[in-house]
Amino acid sequence: MTKGRMEAFSDGVLAIIITIMVLEIKVPHGNSFNDLLPLLPIFLSYVLSFIYLGIYWNNHHHMLHTVKKVSGKILWANLHLLFWLSLVPFVTGWMGENHFAAETMALYGFIMLMAAIAYFFLQNSIIHSQGEGSLLKHAVGNDLKGKLSPVLYIIGIAMAWVNEWISGAMFVLVAIIWLVPDKRIEKILKSEGE
Amino acid sequence: MTKGRMEAFSDGVLAIIITIMVLEIKVPHGNSFNDLLPLLPIFLSYVLSFIYLGIYWNNHHHMLHTVKKVSGKILWANLHLLFWLSLVPFVTGWMGENHFAAETMALYGFIMLMAAIAYFFLQNSIIHSQGEGSLLKHAVGNDLKGKLSPVLYIIGIAMAWVNEWISGAMFVLVAIIWLVPDKRIEKILKSEGE
Amino acid sequence: MTKGRMEAFSDGVLAIIITIMVLEIKVPHGNSFNDLLPLLPIFLSYVLSFIYLGIYWNNHHHMLHTVKKVSGKILWANLHLLFWLSLVPFVTGWMGENHFAAETMALYGFIMLMAAIAYFFLQNSIIHSQGEGSLLKHAVGNDLKGKLSPVLYIIGIAMAWVNEWISGAMFVLVAIIWLVPDKRIEKILKSEGE
Amino acid sequence: MTKGRMEAFSDGVLAIIITIMVLEIKVPHGNSFNDLLPLLPIFLSYVLSFIYLGIYWNNHHHMLHTVKKVSGKILWANLHLLFWLSLVPFVTGWMGENHFAAETMALYGFIMLMAAIAYFFLQNSIIHSQGEGSLLKHAVGNDLKGKLSPVLYIIGIAMAWVNEWISGAMFVLVAIIWLVPDKRIEKILKSEGE
Repeated sequence: MTKGRMEAFSDGVLAIIITIMVLEIKVPHGNSFNDLLPLLPIFLSYVLSFIYLGIYWNNHHHMLHTVKKVSGKILWANLHLLFWLSLVPFVTGWMGENHFAAETMALYGFIMLMAAIAYFFLQNSIIHSQGEGSLLKHAVGNDLKGKLSPVLYIIGIAMAWVNEWISGAMFVLVAIIWLVPDKRIEKILKSEGE
Repeated sequence: MTKGRMEAFSDGVLAIIITIMVLEIKVPHGNSFNDLLPLLPIFLSYVLSFIYLGIYWNNHHHMLHTVKKVSGKILWANLHLLFWLSLVPFVTGWMGENHFAAETMALYGFIMLMAAIAYFFLQNSIIHSQGEGSLLKHAVGNDLKGKLSPVLYIIGIAMAWVNEWISGAMFVLVAIIWLVPDKRIEKILKSEGE
Repeated sequence: MTKGRMEAFSDGVLAIIITIMVLEIKVPHGNSFNDLLPLLPIFLSYVLSFIYLGIYWNNHHHMLHTVKKVSGKILWANLHLLFWLSLVPFVTGWMGENHFAAETMALYGFIMLMAAIAYFFLQNSIIHSQGEGSLLKHAVGNDLKGKLSPVLYIIGIAMAWVNEWISGAMFVLVAIIWLVPDKRIEKILKSEGE
Repeated sequence: MTKGRMEAFSDGVLAIIITIMVLEIKVPHGNSFNDLLPLLPIFLSYVLSFIYLGIYWNNHHHMLHTVKKVSGKILWANLHLLFWLSLVPFVTGWMGENHFAAETMALYGFIMLMAAIAYFFLQNSIIHSQGEGSLLKHAVGNDLKGKLSPVLYIIGIAMAWVNEWISGAMFVLVAIIWLVPDKRIEKILKSEGE
């Protein structure tokens, strides 16, 4: 099965990205809980990014369930997505170490926006390759979440210079939207099986 | 087989966590054995965490043997477990570099406690998804080890401020309990096969 | 299937190389976009290397499609390729941090040249192992890209001391040549299937 | 197939170890070839360790070919091997950064010796689990290489304080012994297939 290696490679890259982020939480010099306090913003941004990457892995996993064969175009659309996600540890670290300063949050939102667009491209490549009666197209439906996310990211980016809390709230909101169980593809696959 | 990617991703993350920990053992500047002496506590905490992660990988491996299909809930319960385990290199490094100071040991125990709870959640999600006559439920039985571990962790955490040796003994004890070959699932699987 | 583990190991190494490179983009101390400016050359070299590694993974993926059994010679030819690719994060970081200085670019080109030669060796080992009527030999054809790349690398290396822009243009050109969809193997495989 | 995950996990750990070593080759500050000169011993030790790990991966790959089912004992024997191999980046870096000083070479040899012993244990666990007529036992035969390596390591360790060149020669010799194609298992497997 030709998609096996694409899944394996994506799993590998996502597993490394999610784990490498923890290296940004540098071991402090002191040995008391107080010495951990300055790490709190870094930890919080780690949690947020971990959840984001978990969502991406989850959705990627479901999306590829509908794929039977992989074209060169899909391979590159996938690498394009992985490229933006590979920058997540950097922006997570930068945002966390600077206590959610305006421009660090804007860049975080920008990278997330680019990843969302890359995911959208990948999804479209797959749908296009499946032709008429695409299983993925059916599963995605009106893709409300997919359309809402970029809007929230853009609001989050713009708000970074106004109020960092609103900006952060937007990014958290995107995560919450996706964390709500997305039965779409699971349902379609199940009904296919019947 | 739908669980394949969840296994691959978990293997990837666990492999990276277990290997990244070694980066905390920083190459010393001197070139004699004496220069390695200050690294001893870091090395010991590395060994302990390596064994813990080996146990987790082992148990995870056996547990997933009983799983046939993976739901969204199980995927997230798994990511939740990986989240706490991803913090192991950090707490291992902090504890080792501070020569097992009280609060560093307490945090180590806390992360291990959270991982144990996350493992318990994952186990329950799988049992629940298997419904009546769950193979895993049967295999786990009264889950003595699973129930004892959190108690030992909590004693270990509380003892960190009293006596670091007792605290450490608790953490080592948990590892020993699990290292003793756990034939439960293997047995059940074997009898299933017959 | 004996080639499964060779693919898995290669995927693992390539996934790690591609992700570890991002660690060279060190989080800056300031919190404004201006603080990111010094990172631009590092980022650009990261993008170039990411694309190169993506191309290698892609070609590797297609090439192994034609392989049925793996000999010890092929395993070592593969490890030899991975060795040169494992040095990519180092040369990428060195080139980026030194703003594409002459000798850093020459070394970058040299490592890429060695990787290309290693890839050529691997390809030949596979063709040789397939004997008469090798599917891969048929697929590769006159291997124009494979022959052109080393020439461009050598020009790029020589030009590093003359004009860094020409040197860089050579390296970018190689990437573009390979990015243009390479239908060769896909076509052959398809016609095999019919 | 129950051994799939053990292979995947081992591949993951070995891939990470082999790649993480390259992080010990720190990007120098200068931008000329002269600035690379101090890195030469680090590079040489990297090459040696890369070859060692390649050999381990290769042999591990062949050995597991003979395995049908994996017991808890084999899983732990495998983790034990991975533990010693996980220390290779550390000893490689220490030896390289200290220009092959006596005690750094002795430690390098010691870790390699422990890995060889761990490999021997793993091999024995598998042979034992296969019972009478073990395919692996047959394939390993008198295991000349396996018996010679520890002897050479011990000579290498002892010689570290006498003459570093002899010590290094021993370690290189072990690698050469193993690099010579080992047809044993391949042959046996082939004759099994017939």
